[in-house]
This record gives sequence, structure tokens and C-alpha cells, in this order.
Amino acid sequence: MPVQEFQLIEHYFRNGQRQREDVVVGIGDDGAVVRVPAGQELVLVMDTLVSGVHFPINTAAYDIGWKALAVNLSDLAAMGARPNWFTLALTLPDTETAWLEEFSRGLFDLASQYAMQLIGGDTTSGPLSVTVQAHGLVDEGEAMLRSGARPGDRIYVSGTLGDAAVALAGLQSEASVTTALRERLDRPRPRLELGQALIDVASACIDVSDGLLADLVHILESSGVGASVDSTKLPLSDAYREHESDVNLALSGGDDYELLFTADPDQSSRVEAIATQLKTPLTCIGEITRDTTMQCLDAQGTPMALGRLGFEHF
Amino acid sequence: MPVQEFQLIEHYFRNGQRQREDVVVGIGDDGAVVRVPAGQELVLVMDTLVSGVHFPINTAAYDIGWKALAVNLSDLAAMGARPNWFTLALTLPDTETAWLEEFSRGLFDLASQYAMQLIGGDTTSGPLSVTVQAHGLVDEGEAMLRSGARPGDRIYVSGTLGDAAVALAGLQSEASVTTALRERLDRPRPRLELGQALIDVASACIDVSDGLLADLVHILESSGVGASVDSTKLPLSDAYREHESDVNLALSGGDDYELLFTADPDQSSRVEAIATQLKTPLTCIGEITRDTTMQCLDAQGTPMALGRLGFEHF
Repeated sequence: MPVQEFQLIEHYFRNGQRQREDVVVGIGDDGAVVRVPAGQELVLVMDTLVSGVHFPINTAAYDIGWKALAVNLSDLAAMGARPNWFTLALTLPDTETAWLEEFSRGLFDLASQYAMQLIGGDTTSGPLSVTVQAHGLVDEGEAMLRSGARPGDRIYVSGTLGDAAVALAGLQSEASVTTALRERLDRPRPRLELGQALIDVASACIDVSDGLLADLVHILESSGVGASVDSTKLPLSDAYREHESDVNLALSGGDDYELLFTADPDQSSRVEAIATQLKTPLTCIGEITRDTTMQCLDAQGTPMALGRLGFEHF
Repeated sequence: MPVQEFQLIEHYFRNGQRQREDVVVGIGDDGAVVRVPAGQELVLVMDTLVSGVHFPINTAAYDIGWKALAVNLSDLAAMGARPNWFTLALTLPDTETAWLEEFSRGLFDLASQYAMQLIGGDTTSGPLSVTVQAHGLVDEGEAMLRSGARPGDRIYVSGTLGDAAVALAGLQSEASVTTALRERLDRPRPRLELGQALIDVASACIDVSDGLLADLVHILESSGVGASVDSTKLPLSDAYREHESDVNLALSGGDDYELLFTADPDQSSRVEAIATQLKTPLTCIGEITRDTTMQCLDAQGTPMALGRLGFEHF
């Protein structure tokens, strides 16, 4: 949709943005041109949301815009990066102005919180799908990776787990879901300040998007270690406890967008200080082990059968 | 598809790539980390191909992989950038290994010609769609833009026009299409060397993806100028002339992936030298005018009615 596309981009995605000084060329040419300061490295993340797969079909356009950027900022957070720019590939079945208005409002409401600039993208016709690539910076060699966890490190997670999964289960069973719970699913708040604060504290870090255990497995595999998780320590919200009688959704539900990280026990006072300073709960839920298996202990200290949660092969 | 996705990426997109020295972290973490040398600027381009919209549904997987990267490299070419890295967001209805094998072969056959490295991406379930973001570098302030065309500049285009459109029209009418013509549609060859050679020669540049006139309009609008195009000068292949009796598809057919650029008449000997050196036809098809309209003259020197081609509003 050449001409239409151009007008679309002009109207909803170009106008009214504050120009960042490090953007040489933004939207409106064959590509964008940006500057990366000396001594810094560029961090790139990319995530696609497909309608009906990554968000319920009836999700509000505002929330789709918000979430498409938020899930990417969560990845930048996990690397400790400072967010700068993003690009958007939007595939739309049709061009409804009311939808676009709300979508772009959600997108820019989040972007402007971090003075991020949309610098380019593509708009195509097709089944609804949104791909965002976000770009951030870290000081040379400072990016937090999945690969630094060492035996004896403590395992921490921010915030509470499983709320988005509870909201999704509620929607799927057509139960009533509170606004607060629904917000955990539709408007995740990326932990950018936390990620940056953890840069020289955490030994490994990942964001929890696929579910706690699935993402912990990524750290364990990258680091060549194992873990023992105490399921009684999982941080659960009151809303979670109201809806769920066990920890399964907290262990394996997706869409948490919390940070899961490991740190040497020597760092525990710094972890506590960061939690206080950022007013963000950081809960120790277990320990990294030399033995390369993953154990999750129940209230009796007995290893849970993780096969039911899809982890039979680890 | 968390676990499946991970295995998919590992198998088809990670293995066997040559590691570039400027890639600090590639596939396999929350994001990629790369280095941009001092004195250079980062150029980012992003294009989505949707099945049935940007390529015929029966297109070979190899060609989809090739084209998804090629259309992005064509944008980098238009800015004069040197290609380095790319990311891939792949949405697939199902996980057919034969399809993925061929898709990744097409993608990497092109990538390896330019020593490009795939540094990240996302794989999701849904209707087939491929988004690539490609990253290149230019020396500070050297990117070619659409906005530099000046009255009196000559308008040039590389290669031949309309071949992909002829191939597509042939497929749609179930006529037989030669392999050479079909290749113009399915395996465009981005003009990267040409783009880099034009950096201090061209006053404005764009790649022809939406059709010659549509892309010329982008230059004219960005530069605040007009143009007079001589339709008898359009470079047409023998195959084009065999199938078509008029220039309409050369003027408005898409998918050419040639470079359209403007240059001061003082630069004409340098343009000729570049054409010779790169063995790439560069044809002068018209001139930039002060008057901000676009004219296209037929063999009698009469302005053609562009309304039929969708340009009534310019």
C-alpha cells in the first residue's frame, strides 16, 4: 500500500515526536541514521506479537501498542541497556483510523516515558501482527548476559509471578478479571531502571517472558550450571492467591516481564539496597548448583515433578 | 512456542555462521550487542514481506529467504551503506523442516555474499510473514538521502525497469515466464556496490521498490522539486519488450530494486565511469525541475496522463 502507507506513517507515527539529538535521519527516508557514542555498544532486541497468539483477539488497540514496545524494553532491561530508538513493522488487515489512533497512543505513551524515538518501520496489509525492534546502549563490555551464573549464586526475581497467566486463564474461562490483574497481562511495565542498577551486581540476567522455569533454563544452559528453586519462596500477589491454589502458573505461566537474575551471595546487601531504592520487591527464590539439573522443591522439601509443566527433558 | 522456537533458531539460524569481530553477542541472549566504530553512523532499515501480498503464495522457500533480506539490502544500498548485521522476525503457520532448510539457505546465500551476520530475531506462530531489519554503516554525514535533488540535476536509474512486474503479470495470468524474468521477481540483486560508489556523486537516491514514478515522487517531495521524465529513455530489457507494448509496467510496476538517483550534470562523467567500472547500466531518464510537478513525456514529447497509473494527486 504505497501511497496510503506513506500517509499512515506520516499521520500516526511521525508527527509530534520529539527529535533526539543522536538521530541524524528519522522516519521518511530509505532508512534511519543514528549515532552511537564512542565507548558504548549497541544492544538490539526484536519481538513479534501476533494477534490471537501473543494477545487475546479482543485486546484494546492502546494495549497492543503499549505491549509491543514493552516486551522489547523488557529484553533491553534484562541486558542492562539504556533505551534510545525503536522501529516498527506493523501488519494490518485494514486501515481503521480509530484503531491506529489508539495503537499509536499506547505505543508513544510508553516510548515517551523513556524519551525513545520511533525512527522507521514498515506498514503492510495482512493478518494483524506487530514487530518492534528496540535499540539501546551499554558501556563497552557491560551488557548483562545469560551466561554468567556460577554455583553458589543466589537466584532472584523481581515483582510478583503468574499474574498475567492468571488474567489470561480468567479471560479464557470467561471469568471476571480485575483491572489490576488485566493490566499485568496487557500493559507490562518493563524493569528498565532495575536492569541498569543490576549491571555490576548480577552475574546473569534474563526477563521472564516464557515463564519462570523456562527462562531459568536459558540461564542454566548458557551458564553450564543447575539450580534449586524453593517454590515456597515464589513472590505471589494477593490476586494470584485468590485465584490459584498452587504455584503452577507462577512457575510456568508466561508474560511476567519481571527480571530473573543471579548474584554472588556477597552482593546480597547491594541487591537489598536496590530493592529499597527502586521500591521493587526482589525475592531470593533459590540457588545455582554445580550439578546441572533443575530442581524445584515443594513445601515439604520434596522435588516437584516438573514433567507436568513441560520440563521433562531438562 | 518457547522450547520449539529455541531449537528452531539453534538449528537453522545459528549454526555455521561466521562470527564477525564487531559482534560482541549474537543469537542466544535477550538481545544482540554490536560495536559501531568511531567516525561512523549506523543505518537501520526494516521491511516486511507478507505471503500473498509481497510474494506469490507458491514462491519457493529459498526465494522468500533471499528476497526478505534483498529488499532490505536494497534500502541500505540507496543510502550508500556498507551492510553488517541483520535480525529476523519470522512468523510461520507451522514448522516444516524442509521449508525452513530452504528458507535459511536462501537467506544465508545472500547474507554471506556480504559477510553479514544474523544477530537475533524472533520466531512466532501465525500466518507466514517475514520481517528483516538490516544494519549498515556510513562515514559520519555521508548517508545519501532523498532530499538533495536540485533543479537541473539529471535523473538516472540503474539496470532495467519493469521486469519483475512483467513476471508477476505473467504468473497471474498463468502465462509461461522465463527463469531469467522470474529471477527478477524472486531474487532481486541489491545494488550495494553501486550505492557505495554514488556516495559523493548523487545528490539524492532511493531504491525503486514501489515503482519508478512512486519512488521518484518520494525524492521530489523530500527535495521540494519537480521532474520531467522522458519515457522513451526508460531502460527496458528484451524480455520486457517481448511481453509489453507500452511503458506502463516500467513506470509503475514494483519490485525493481534498482537505484534511482539524481546528480548534477557536472558529475556525468563520474556516473559514466561508475557504470563502466561496475558493469551496471546507468541511464539518464530525465531532469529535475524547479516547477514542483512531475511530467512524463511520450514518444511525441506529449505529457502522458499519469492518472491512469495512480498519480492524479501529485
